[in-house]
Amino acid sequence: MGLPKIVVLGAGYGGLMTVLGLQKQLNHQEAEITLVNLNPYHYVTTKLHEPAAGTLDPDYARVSIDSLINRDKVRFVQDKVTGFDPEKKQVHLEGSEEPLSYDYLVFGLGAETETFGTKGVLENALLINSLNSVRMIRERIEYNFSRYQMSEEKSDELITIVVGGAGFTGIEFVGELVDRLPKLCRQFDIPREKVRLVNIEAAPTVLPGFDKDLVDYAVKYLEDRGVEFRISTPIEAVTPDGVVLKGGEELKSANVVWTCGVRGNSLLEKAGLETMRGRVKVDEFLRAPGYEDLFIIGDNSLILNDQERPYPPTAQMAMQQGEALAKNLTAILRGGSPTSFRFQLKGTVASLGKGSAIGIVGNRKVFGTQASLIKRLIDWRWYYMVGGLPLVFKKAKF
Amino acid sequence: MGLPKIVVLGAGYGGLMTVLGLQKQLNHQEAEITLVNLNPYHYVTTKLHEPAAGTLDPDYARVSIDSLINRDKVRFVQDKVTGFDPEKKQVHLEGSEEPLSYDYLVFGLGAETETFGTKGVLENALLINSLNSVRMIRERIEYNFSRYQMSEEKSDELITIVVGGAGFTGIEFVGELVDRLPKLCRQFDIPREKVRLVNIEAAPTVLPGFDKDLVDYAVKYLEDRGVEFRISTPIEAVTPDGVVLKGGEELKSANVVWTCGVRGNSLLEKAGLETMRGRVKVDEFLRAPGYEDLFIIGDNSLILNDQERPYPPTAQMAMQQGEALAKNLTAILRGGSPTSFRFQLKGTVASLGKGSAIGIVGNRKVFGTQASLIKRLIDWRWYYMVGGLPLVFKKAKF
Repeated sequence: MGLPKIVVLGAGYGGLMTVLGLQKQLNHQEAEITLVNLNPYHYVTTKLHEPAAGTLDPDYARVSIDSLINRDKVRFVQDKVTGFDPEKKQVHLEGSEEPLSYDYLVFGLGAETETFGTKGVLENALLINSLNSVRMIRERIEYNFSRYQMSEEKSDELITIVVGGAGFTGIEFVGELVDRLPKLCRQFDIPREKVRLVNIEAAPTVLPGFDKDLVDYAVKYLEDRGVEFRISTPIEAVTPDGVVLKGGEELKSANVVWTCGVRGNSLLEKAGLETMRGRVKVDEFLRAPGYEDLFIIGDNSLILNDQERPYPPTAQMAMQQGEALAKNLTAILRGGSPTSFRFQLKGTVASLGKGSAIGIVGNRKVFGTQASLIKRLIDWRWYYMVGGLPLVFKKAKF
Repeated sequence: MGLPKIVVLGAGYGGLMTVLGLQKQLNHQEAEITLVNLNPYHYVTTKLHEPAAGTLDPDYARVSIDSLINRDKVRFVQDKVTGFDPEKKQVHLEGSEEPLSYDYLVFGLGAETETFGTKGVLENALLINSLNSVRMIRERIEYNFSRYQMSEEKSDELITIVVGGAGFTGIEFVGELVDRLPKLCRQFDIPREKVRLVNIEAAPTVLPGFDKDLVDYAVKYLEDRGVEFRISTPIEAVTPDGVVLKGGEELKSANVVWTCGVRGNSLLEKAGLETMRGRVKVDEFLRAPGYEDLFIIGDNSLILNDQERPYPPTAQMAMQQGEALAKNLTAILRGGSPTSFRFQLKGTVASLGKGSAIGIVGNRKVFGTQASLIKRLIDWRWYYMVGGLPLVFKKAKF
């Protein structure tokens, strides 16, 4: 073959944008492109709180990779990445003895759960980090509601839902769940007032880092709908019976969802790279320090803003990185020079369920129905970017 | 008041038919009628296998009692019956200190699960005996499918469904589930061929007591769709891990449904009545031996056929009993004489899922689509009997 080998790990926002850009810009003779992903589909991480709460069929939050890539230009390998060796330029896959060789590696495998040392999180808590994990959240809650109704004892913990973390994901999940609860209660003949939804946050505020007006709006909106907030309350441990709060208070719940944060992928450390909370501080071309051929994008890349503070990992960041990287790789393959990456923050909108949201778009604060509409447009834009109008019409719920 | 007090326990087929007949035939001045039921709704027991398999919304298998009774003539008490005293003519309720006095008692509380001494049934198996219990079957299966997909180990027991008992209920549930499985598998991205559905029967045949042609048809139909039958195989114990078969073989399953049989309500024995497998052999007027004022109908009444063998407890039997009893009570209250009850077997149809069924109607064997249509007409007839055409249109799925 002799063609330069580009291997892209992960079909998240970053990896997918890279591959779609490459397959558009390069012709067959310029490179051999391989995309590796655990599942045969891309899932829309920013929508996962919806199938988790049970308000959206998971199929609306995923797109088959086959329907997006051009098989003439991109080889798709469905497998689990077990490691990579940046010196030997090889990627190891669970389902194959033979390692995958590369000339350029794009690492976009996504983040892992940050437990902050809290005991029992990975064993006992439910997570919002994959389509499979959110299906399980929905099913666990429904199963426990059915158990409550069936049992003589009517144990409150079965219908108590504890969400650890009131950051972006936690709030979006809580907002969605509060929309679903009345229907869920009717479905199982359980009075709504018996169900508790408790959102616990270690920081002294809900949505740390957000504008105070937005935070106040969100808290009032959700409290009016029955959400109990416990701020400045670190969780010491997640047990099979619930959570233990700092100070020893125990909150019993058979439905504990952990949304307290993410850290970089552990494969990066295993490969010998230097990381901060698992993330690699990349250079202006998104390369790992010391490597010309190893690009790290999405939740695993650490980029500082003008105040020398790391940007939070977002879909927006990953998309822009993927787009830029595809252009740079094309340029490099053609003997040109890469262009420095610069993130452009367009805004941030967090949904509070189906009918409301809060956020900042440009310099403007947005609330309520208007913000909710903007949030939907953002979702639709992503489908448009990867699959054009047909995909928007197929996946968007109008 | 001074009016004769008729208390009807249970709003199943028998109890409901009694109350609806009484409220039609009697006027306000003739009796004080009280209906006691655990739930505010009547559920259609013969349809419970559908919500259990997840092919029908439970709301289509129940009718609000309020929508059926005339509150001017019938008092409805939602409570749990904890016992009754046929000497003192009193019924004890969980939610009330004061017992309920009666002049005539109609006992229609329905059957209990028959374990045949098998260990662990009530602790570990799922049951098809109430709307709450079948909701739990559906949710347990879905939850375990989500757990399977989420786990690294992919334990087969999570997606192995064991149905104990291949009688009427067992076969109808298996038939329904076999219809649902392809959809369920798509929903959770699990290959259909990985899911096992095993139906275990102690008797040497599926559907014991049925015509051989019908049994052969059912077995072939279900085996073609992937059901594994184990006949002549008694279950020794149900454990948290699955079932232990006679001889010691263990079949691992996190989804064990027990449909092996029913016995009479234990409140009858507690009240000092003589029973056979919990059922009371009633006289020609459906009275318990030795009592003029205690009527026992539905699954708790034992009636012999011409060959001196007990009729199996069915909805058909309970409906006819309720209808006859309402007429007899009206006659008694008006100083007349009751008429002997005689069961008229109109036919028996067991569904094998949405598209097929088997049965005997009159003297004719029916199979396949035709039988399936007849089964639906039987369902619709029940709605017509209790709620007229409006209820048929509301509840029937066309």
